[in-house]
Amino acid sequence: MTEEAGRLTLSLAERVVRLRYDDLPEPARLVVRQCLLDYLACAIAGAGDPLVSMLLDELTEAGGASQASVVAHGLRLPALSAALVNGAAGHALDYDDVNVAMPGHPSVAILPGLLALGEAKTSAGRDVVTAFVAGYETACRIGAALAPGHYDLGFHATATVGCLGAAAACARLLGLDAGKTAAALGIAGTQAAGLKSQFGTMCKPFHAGKAAQNGLLAARLAARGFSSRSDLIECRQGFALTHGPDFAPHRALAEPPGGFHLLANLFKYHAACYFTHAPIECARKLRQEHDLDPERIARIRLRVDASTDRVCNIPAPIDGLESKFSLRQTVAMALCGVETAGLENYSAAGAHDPRPMRLRDKITIDFQTGWAQTLAELEVETTEGARLGARHDSGIPAADLALQGRRLADKFDGLVTPVLGAARSRELQQTIAAVDDLTDIGTLTRLAAR
Amino acid sequence: MTEEAGRLTLSLAERVVRLRYDDLPEPARLVVRQCLLDYLACAIAGAGDPLVSMLLDELTEAGGASQASVVAHGLRLPALSAALVNGAAGHALDYDDVNVAMPGHPSVAILPGLLALGEAKTSAGRDVVTAFVAGYETACRIGAALAPGHYDLGFHATATVGCLGAAAACARLLGLDAGKTAAALGIAGTQAAGLKSQFGTMCKPFHAGKAAQNGLLAARLAARGFSSRSDLIECRQGFALTHGPDFAPHRALAEPPGGFHLLANLFKYHAACYFTHAPIECARKLRQEHDLDPERIARIRLRVDASTDRVCNIPAPIDGLESKFSLRQTVAMALCGVETAGLENYSAAGAHDPRPMRLRDKITIDFQTGWAQTLAELEVETTEGARLGARHDSGIPAADLALQGRRLADKFDGLVTPVLGAARSRELQQTIAAVDDLTDIGTLTRLAAR
Repeated sequence: MTEEAGRLTLSLAERVVRLRYDDLPEPARLVVRQCLLDYLACAIAGAGDPLVSMLLDELTEAGGASQASVVAHGLRLPALSAALVNGAAGHALDYDDVNVAMPGHPSVAILPGLLALGEAKTSAGRDVVTAFVAGYETACRIGAALAPGHYDLGFHATATVGCLGAAAACARLLGLDAGKTAAALGIAGTQAAGLKSQFGTMCKPFHAGKAAQNGLLAARLAARGFSSRSDLIECRQGFALTHGPDFAPHRALAEPPGGFHLLANLFKYHAACYFTHAPIECARKLRQEHDLDPERIARIRLRVDASTDRVCNIPAPIDGLESKFSLRQTVAMALCGVETAGLENYSAAGAHDPRPMRLRDKITIDFQTGWAQTLAELEVETTEGARLGARHDSGIPAADLALQGRRLADKFDGLVTPVLGAARSRELQQTIAAVDDLTDIGTLTRLAAR
Repeated sequence: MTEEAGRLTLSLAERVVRLRYDDLPEPARLVVRQCLLDYLACAIAGAGDPLVSMLLDELTEAGGASQASVVAHGLRLPALSAALVNGAAGHALDYDDVNVAMPGHPSVAILPGLLALGEAKTSAGRDVVTAFVAGYETACRIGAALAPGHYDLGFHATATVGCLGAAAACARLLGLDAGKTAAALGIAGTQAAGLKSQFGTMCKPFHAGKAAQNGLLAARLAARGFSSRSDLIECRQGFALTHGPDFAPHRALAEPPGGFHLLANLFKYHAACYFTHAPIECARKLRQEHDLDPERIARIRLRVDASTDRVCNIPAPIDGLESKFSLRQTVAMALCGVETAGLENYSAAGAHDPRPMRLRDKITIDFQTGWAQTLAELEVETTEGARLGARHDSGIPAADLALQGRRLADKFDGLVTPVLGAARSRELQQTIAAVDDLTDIGTLTRLAAR
């Protein structure tokens, strides 16, 4: 082990402190704006979910200082409360961005607490941008060091690793030194929790909110001088060794392509679990290329990595949330031409629609070992005996960032306009596009509040 | 596996719902009052700790509804905030009660959230008593099913298992049915966190506060209909299997002596980690029985279970907190006649006192395998070559509850009078003694607030 790997927590903290806005290449800044755009789209659309109402009822009953805005609800709460509600809202639809290194949803774990903190302390846009990158890179580096065992064992990395990323981002915005940033990582690491077995329940989005809230709390306590080990990630019986079988600290220190994990950020264009995306893309391709009639499908064989079995293999979903975690349901929907981008198509009615239900039962899943979790092969045999095949990897980052931006703008319009109206939606998009120049990030968060 | 063990979460939830005040034998009710007395003594004395000030600064800045009292601070906060601060205060001195089945500190994980909830909803004393027992038994049953691997692996059971106990207690006070109580356990289990490697830092007491707060939040969300798996403890990749190597659900269903784990509650009379108590008692015995002069000690051999090495074996502590987690320091203090009950004796000055420092370096620790963690043997060799031995097990519950009550009253006086004054201290003791008859638990919590 190198000397740096042996003091991983402190080494990551030093990177957080060292990062400067001026060191961010323009593509990285652009992806930050895309992450903001995508997170806010998902959170604004997700804010109407019953789980958000429950959290909001709980936290408005507690009340408190008007420090930070709640997305799409036109009210302000203490930053810690806003972080929890907004995080849950941002993940309610499971439609927010992904990084495979983490592996999980970085923006929704980091941005809710960071934006709440920024609004509370009237931070400048570019400071929030820098802090976000610091948190993002920290989360992915820690995630990489714990992968794949941490996630495979049952931990929801968005919740656990995400909490450390949130702490790093908030520590950066608070201007903490390396020692206090390491303490923030330690206070976050000893709060980090969230189990994959809760997927399909309201606890999954709740995890994202808790990661944001606990990370923010960790950073704020560290700023006040709250003590923690400064090596909690790597120490004996520390975060890494208690939460996975294959901790490899040097993987946290490997340089990602282009110098930033952020550049490999993946956005979702289907409103279901990320590991259903490659199967969905295969299904869409077969349907389009072969003008495939669902009634003439005899057998379907799906090949994906075995690890997806514990993530999104609910065989016979009964509602919208379960449908999002069902390889069979999403593939069947896509083969039937149901729009998998449309939130309204994940519902109890959709889960009981006889057309996809019939196809669902014709799917055999052939789990593979050692595949990328984002890779899928789909083979359809028609009633006439024809065999059609498709293959897709949804883990390859977009090469064309401008095109990615246009797709995200469409997604934003589709999600936000019904909630905030066309004029406010446009104004918010323009404000996000100019985030680097905002003197007060609250301009943006208050616009997103309604 | 029995059918009941296969549905452990729901089975524990059903026990929580079934428990009635009238089913509690008088010794159990008496121990509840002793737990309350001891928790409040520790919390009131601990409330002056810097870590509590930091949390209080953070949470008063957030503010909110005046739902629940903060011990010894004369102010009220939202119940969730009061639970966090009071839990941290109650564990700041590491002087609060213990149950070996858990293994950890049950009262401080459960009472802060439960009392805050009770105050917020004006609950009757006996309902709080019943709910506390429900939470206590749930924590110990879950702890027993995960022991010893969960704690040995590095998890602070007070934090993790305690969170589930807190959720069970709050669910009982909220009158939830078995299904919602199981959901509360699930929402708690997916938040449960806390690492033993943080022992000796402010995070250890913070863990207790987080357990209380997260457990309360879990119960309140479950009451609102927030969804969770109803089998989170025992399911594949659930709380148990992700948090330890030797989950044995049937151990959760074994009946403890007298029908209640509560009856085996252990109180602390030394202000240090519980696993230092047996070594301290050995040292006190040797000093008293042999009129032992520290200057005439040549060699000291301590035998304790190897698992204590990861809990309280800081070899050369430099401050009060580290001293509490140092087998060598505490044994040396006791051999020198330093009062180990006295909070003031755990300090940087005490850690640098040359008398215990000289003895500290003469101690060899001989770690044993398979011993009870509460068992110790101490052997002292004098400069004249005499060999003196003592053995103590601090894990045996008191047979004489009345005597235990008197010792706790003395401890309460010593801790509370300097903070609240003699008159208020007496009034609070009397109110605790009559808790079963209180129509409003807030009478008690407001008295403890100052």
